[in-house]
Amino acid sequence: MVSINIERLKDSIRDLSKIGYNDEDHGVYRWGFTDADMRARHWLLDLVKNEGFDAHMDGAGNVFFGIGDYHKKPAVLTGSHLDTVPAGGIFDGALGVLSGLEVLRTLKENDVKLEHPVWVVATAEEEGRFGGMMGSQAITGVVNMDWLMSAHDADNVYLKDAMAEHGLDVMNVLDAAWPAERLKAFYELHIEQGPVLFNEDICIGAVEGISGVFKWIVHLKGKADHAGTAPMNMRSDAFMGLADFAHEIERIIAEDGTDKTRITVGKVDLKPGSPHTVPGEAVFTIVGRDMSNDVMQELADSCRKALSAIARKHRLMFEYEQVSWLKPQACSDSLTQIIENKAKQRKLSCLKMPSGAGHDTQFLAQITEAGLIFIPSVNGVSHAPDEWSHWHDVEAGTNVLLDCIVESAS
Amino acid sequence: MVSINIERLKDSIRDLSKIGYNDEDHGVYRWGFTDADMRARHWLLDLVKNEGFDAHMDGAGNVFFGIGDYHKKPAVLTGSHLDTVPAGGIFDGALGVLSGLEVLRTLKENDVKLEHPVWVVATAEEEGRFGGMMGSQAITGVVNMDWLMSAHDADNVYLKDAMAEHGLDVMNVLDAAWPAERLKAFYELHIEQGPVLFNEDICIGAVEGISGVFKWIVHLKGKADHAGTAPMNMRSDAFMGLADFAHEIERIIAEDGTDKTRITVGKVDLKPGSPHTVPGEAVFTIVGRDMSNDVMQELADSCRKALSAIARKHRLMFEYEQVSWLKPQACSDSLTQIIENKAKQRKLSCLKMPSGAGHDTQFLAQITEAGLIFIPSVNGVSHAPDEWSHWHDVEAGTNVLLDCIVESAS
Repeated sequence: MVSINIERLKDSIRDLSKIGYNDEDHGVYRWGFTDADMRARHWLLDLVKNEGFDAHMDGAGNVFFGIGDYHKKPAVLTGSHLDTVPAGGIFDGALGVLSGLEVLRTLKENDVKLEHPVWVVATAEEEGRFGGMMGSQAITGVVNMDWLMSAHDADNVYLKDAMAEHGLDVMNVLDAAWPAERLKAFYELHIEQGPVLFNEDICIGAVEGISGVFKWIVHLKGKADHAGTAPMNMRSDAFMGLADFAHEIERIIAEDGTDKTRITVGKVDLKPGSPHTVPGEAVFTIVGRDMSNDVMQELADSCRKALSAIARKHRLMFEYEQVSWLKPQACSDSLTQIIENKAKQRKLSCLKMPSGAGHDTQFLAQITEAGLIFIPSVNGVSHAPDEWSHWHDVEAGTNVLLDCIVESAS
Repeated sequence: MVSINIERLKDSIRDLSKIGYNDEDHGVYRWGFTDADMRARHWLLDLVKNEGFDAHMDGAGNVFFGIGDYHKKPAVLTGSHLDTVPAGGIFDGALGVLSGLEVLRTLKENDVKLEHPVWVVATAEEEGRFGGMMGSQAITGVVNMDWLMSAHDADNVYLKDAMAEHGLDVMNVLDAAWPAERLKAFYELHIEQGPVLFNEDICIGAVEGISGVFKWIVHLKGKADHAGTAPMNMRSDAFMGLADFAHEIERIIAEDGTDKTRITVGKVDLKPGSPHTVPGEAVFTIVGRDMSNDVMQELADSCRKALSAIARKHRLMFEYEQVSWLKPQACSDSLTQIIENKAKQRKLSCLKMPSGAGHDTQFLAQITEAGLIFIPSVNGVSHAPDEWSHWHDVEAGTNVLLDCIVESAS
């Protein structure tokens, strides 16, 4: 059984982390299609070409490199994204790309012969500057012209202009699609970005799928009153309506959810928002997640019923807007099983688990068998400078990735 | 039984409402010591002098006018404030001043002879530009030099500078104090600013006292987590702690409060305040009120205990700052009884009730017998352009004020 070289991988991760690194907050700034992001792509292209791999950048800014001709036989593809959130960490995305490179190096230096080509992709704009997962959507062929022309960031910089600045023509994004027959399987190695593996001291997560997610913006409207003069029983206190709803979340999950359900109230605005005034309006978000679309539907129904009842009780008007509804995306059962088996062979603890965060895998899974491997995030932290994963977990995860690729490409 | 002239009073209220009136939002802008506020004071001085009353402005900007020499016999004083909140209504404060004027006019035109002088005061800066109740605190003699020199508004305009702009020397505020022996009684007629009289269709409120009030700023600190990756049972969700506390308010009032208790969470800030992030911190206000200081103490204890327990349950850090604690101020039992009797004699419905809002009465009550009369606020609205009280209630309240003053001054 061949194994990867953790020191070599460590060096690569450290080299990449310097691109976009900020000395003050120690965060990495490679927001999609910024100079730093593009420097990282060209650094990677040069690096892998120098090491003798075939490599190119596609029309979406995705960097591909690998061994073998995927026009002749379907390839086993692995990878993740190179861009980061502003002030992000050094592993999120980068790990999936550079562990792929380390797998190629290991295959090459050990002269491992495989039936299928093995390629790595470093996807573009996964983190959401212009909406997110742009590179993997382009590969999957689900990007459309309208979106490409209208997509812009929070500062109203258009995607097409940001790409043009780096010599990329937004029209070529449409050429980045891969026909399904060119792919045999896709694997992504990623940090968990959550506390489960770390808290439970488990080394490998075999991800069963990516949770679906719905987002609501809810308005409860009552009546703003003087907090001294309005008796408790004459109030229409919008905040108390919200608090009652929050109190119901545990019951709703117990009745209609699963152990993979998450319901979060993350943003609350009270109006007028003065200590001496009964809140006349509460505007808040509900974000619900589960691995089953049917369960999500039941959770949404229960939230709606609970809010309606609470609104009646507190004499509030209740309105909500469903901002988004993304269905869950299952990973390939057989690939998840391969991940579990490979972890077991290396005597690594392994947990089947959902992914609550979105990943490139969820798009690749639409055109090929896809598997997602997690390693622990220390304290569950990500999207922050103190995002960290222990090197022994990085090594273990990359070895599992290697073994999975070898099996799928054999 | 003499009665007031509602048409004359209506005209005065309308005349005053034009000073500081904003044609766009239909609100009155007479924030303390602004030009409009001072124009109103001089308008009043000129008006009452022209009508033949003794009148002067004291060092605090309070306008006094009346009949009889309070240096010889203690006076019955009535009144309220002339300043308004920005975009306020036409009754809040103004009613108490102009109903006093209408009482004087009625006494004069009917040649009613009374044992005691009857005076009216239009107090300064009640609404809180620099902290509030400045005029009545000056009369009561509880203002100190330090506060006068350091008081400033939200735009960092100092009280002393705002007064100097209108030719007033802040040092003279200290000369505005009235010796207790100069006063026999104080009455204030005010709109309720709450929904009780309006909802219950009662004409007169005989106020037993002004609620005490405490204000806390509470911090619950947990851990910000990705709303997708953090399982419900691994979260330290600061908002869920707040929601649990809000849910306890009803129990706390039932166990330790009275029908006069109010507990309000009016302002909430969640950090980071993002829909997809478990709130790591909740900063919110608790404002508690009751007519008994002991009850307030028990309510505060119960809030603290509930928050401590909730913080433990949700793995949160709990801290609070007690920003203020104002004790309740009882009105004079005998004057409250007079108000009730006079309402009864005029066949007006009357309710003994607390005042949840602060009023000049609470300071005057520290140096003399004080009584506070409420009339209904339509829909309980005040501090807004659509603040309204029906003219028949204004008439009834002013007649009760007249009767009370006649009795106390006889």
